[in-house]
Amino acid sequence: MIRVNENYAKLQASYLFAEIAHRIKAYEAENPPRPIIRMGIGDVTEPLPPACIAAMHRAVDEMASRETFRGYGPEQGYAFLREAIAANDFQARGADIAPDEIFVSDGAKCDTANIQELFADKIRVAVPDPVYPVYVDTNVMAGRTGPATTSGRYMRLHYLPSTPVGRFVPLPPNRTVDLVYLCFPNNPTGATATREQLANWVGYARERKSLILFDAAYEAFIRDPEIPHSIYEIPGARECAIEFRSFSKTAGFTGTRCAFTVVPKDCCAYTAKGEPVPLHPMWMRRHTTKFNGVSYPVQRAAEAVYSPEGKKQVRDLIDFYLGNAAIVRKTMRKLGLRATGGENSPYIWVRAGGSSWDFFDRLLRECQVVVTPGAGFGRCGEGYIRISAFNSRANVEEAMARLTAALRK
Amino acid sequence: MIRVNENYAKLQASYLFAEIAHRIKAYEAENPPRPIIRMGIGDVTEPLPPACIAAMHRAVDEMASRETFRGYGPEQGYAFLREAIAANDFQARGADIAPDEIFVSDGAKCDTANIQELFADKIRVAVPDPVYPVYVDTNVMAGRTGPATTSGRYMRLHYLPSTPVGRFVPLPPNRTVDLVYLCFPNNPTGATATREQLANWVGYARERKSLILFDAAYEAFIRDPEIPHSIYEIPGARECAIEFRSFSKTAGFTGTRCAFTVVPKDCCAYTAKGEPVPLHPMWMRRHTTKFNGVSYPVQRAAEAVYSPEGKKQVRDLIDFYLGNAAIVRKTMRKLGLRATGGENSPYIWVRAGGSSWDFFDRLLRECQVVVTPGAGFGRCGEGYIRISAFNSRANVEEAMARLTAALRK
Repeated sequence: MIRVNENYAKLQASYLFAEIAHRIKAYEAENPPRPIIRMGIGDVTEPLPPACIAAMHRAVDEMASRETFRGYGPEQGYAFLREAIAANDFQARGADIAPDEIFVSDGAKCDTANIQELFADKIRVAVPDPVYPVYVDTNVMAGRTGPATTSGRYMRLHYLPSTPVGRFVPLPPNRTVDLVYLCFPNNPTGATATREQLANWVGYARERKSLILFDAAYEAFIRDPEIPHSIYEIPGARECAIEFRSFSKTAGFTGTRCAFTVVPKDCCAYTAKGEPVPLHPMWMRRHTTKFNGVSYPVQRAAEAVYSPEGKKQVRDLIDFYLGNAAIVRKTMRKLGLRATGGENSPYIWVRAGGSSWDFFDRLLRECQVVVTPGAGFGRCGEGYIRISAFNSRANVEEAMARLTAALRK
Repeated sequence: MIRVNENYAKLQASYLFAEIAHRIKAYEAENPPRPIIRMGIGDVTEPLPPACIAAMHRAVDEMASRETFRGYGPEQGYAFLREAIAANDFQARGADIAPDEIFVSDGAKCDTANIQELFADKIRVAVPDPVYPVYVDTNVMAGRTGPATTSGRYMRLHYLPSTPVGRFVPLPPNRTVDLVYLCFPNNPTGATATREQLANWVGYARERKSLILFDAAYEAFIRDPEIPHSIYEIPGARECAIEFRSFSKTAGFTGTRCAFTVVPKDCCAYTAKGEPVPLHPMWMRRHTTKFNGVSYPVQRAAEAVYSPEGKKQVRDLIDFYLGNAAIVRKTMRKLGLRATGGENSPYIWVRAGGSSWDFFDRLLRECQVVVTPGAGFGRCGEGYIRISAFNSRANVEEAMARLTAALRK
């Protein structure tokens, strides 16, 4: 008899974005007076940079002729892309990362979910609260948590509160946790971590032999030169951190699919007897056995992000979204609402002045504007909403005008 | 202390294709008299069908403009592709599969590896011998086997011998196994399974509440109208089988990346108490939580496989490789070597008349032709080599001329 993985039964049914979709649909049936503007899900809206489009067309043409056709590529990604990444994203910032420490993949979501396979079942996992739900759900599926309690939190999972105390950057806990998820610039709070805050975490991880999973999917939004883009800008991080990056938010690749993970050769986990085992060859084995590499034309499009024209186009694209974010922040301030994020991040985290879902419903019904209720990201998200800057300028301006009219009353 | 998944340490170091590459490299250093022809790895050589190229260019252009740009798509794949698959690959053959039972992915290798997450740790797994190494290695990583013995077989894994008795189609074992991997047309033997043989397996699985993982990545090579392309052509298979398909070998997508998995809504696994749990919503949860969908231009290229011109181009492409396979088979027959496969499959499985690796070395040194030693696929592969038909016609003809000259002596 084929037995099922019963850990899946622990997963809580109502997924945040499904519940949002449900409420929008119910409201739409009532014929709202104006079109609904969606400032909820963090999906990009602007086209791919022209340099990426041109590179992808060229690569598709290569696939049309026997002489230039490409079959299976290296599972870890073509050298042309890994070399461009290492030079531009790391070495140029003083982070000592080599091309062969980079693994190109089809998404940071997949990688943050799959990396757990390298670790033992019985480890203590810590996640921030509020948190990107994928970190939690994938640990539930793998059996690294107990059942959910009535509060919505899972037993055996260690939650790291991210609140205004500490400017939404969690502190290392007093007890030892083995695996820690950190995400900066943060989804959903838009918070960034200073060099000192990251150094504090690296110190903790090295002292306790913990491992940090550092999700830097939004690093391209950092404009403040004092804020690190990579955890590897912190000395010692090569020994205790794996970093996840994506072209999704950087260059608008949410529908094109390319990302990468950095596993430094110094990074180890330990056997039951305490012997160190390097994670780099293990991830190489996992990646080559369970993955077949990213589509060749997509890798060429990603490479174009690092060309001189690609760099300029990506910077303009991010500037555009940061311009949206600035409009949102300014509106929140005018309305007297406390808000964080949006300066080095596409997300603005706004104090609702009441329950998250009540404020969500009010904005939907009075303004026909959809946001994301903070409570959907965890207990510490209650009382907040997340506004995403991924939208057209016209939509952002219209949404902010509606909010101003409704909330000023 | 972050503990490592110690199951990885059970994996046997020498991976088949790495060892082949090593031997080729050593021989190349001796300056072989002629260029080496590679008939080993099963990678396609011919360009993408023109219909796919045109569709991909159109989709890339859509990504260049705000009005037609696509961000995140549905994780399970766009409806346009899933509907084309269901209609053409299943319903047209009398197999009752709906579009929402299809999950589009970036590779059948990933899917056959990841599907295991839905099952309990302590299940009995059966694999054919010889076998595609990924089925075995991913079960080792997940801790579903014991250590390897000196024979190279893993403890607790049930091997199903595929030998000339039964024409390389394994029989269901007397004992109950919970999860069974089957692959037809087979990699590496090139064997196909008749309707009766598949019905025998479906009967076994239904009686024992086992689950069949049916890998049909090579179904497009079937030309004999009596041979089923899908396990769902067998009544009752919807209850006990998951099927994996790929565009890699069908339409030359090894470097473009698109595949799909069929999880029928009738298909169940069981709790410890014996209660059935449908696998479709579980795979949906896994797919949406750990995967972000296939690149939009790639899905449009895959859709074009089902257009009238795409169908013709794909058929011509497969006919071309089958033409290569026929040349190889004819040569083997002339040389008096016993061979199977190559009629409804791109692989020809040849009796070496001695050890696999000895014959591999002889063909490399005397003919400068690379094949795959059957022993690399398992104990029952010893004494065989696999020849792949994926090559240019000129290379196949030259390789066969060299073999004829060397082996006729």
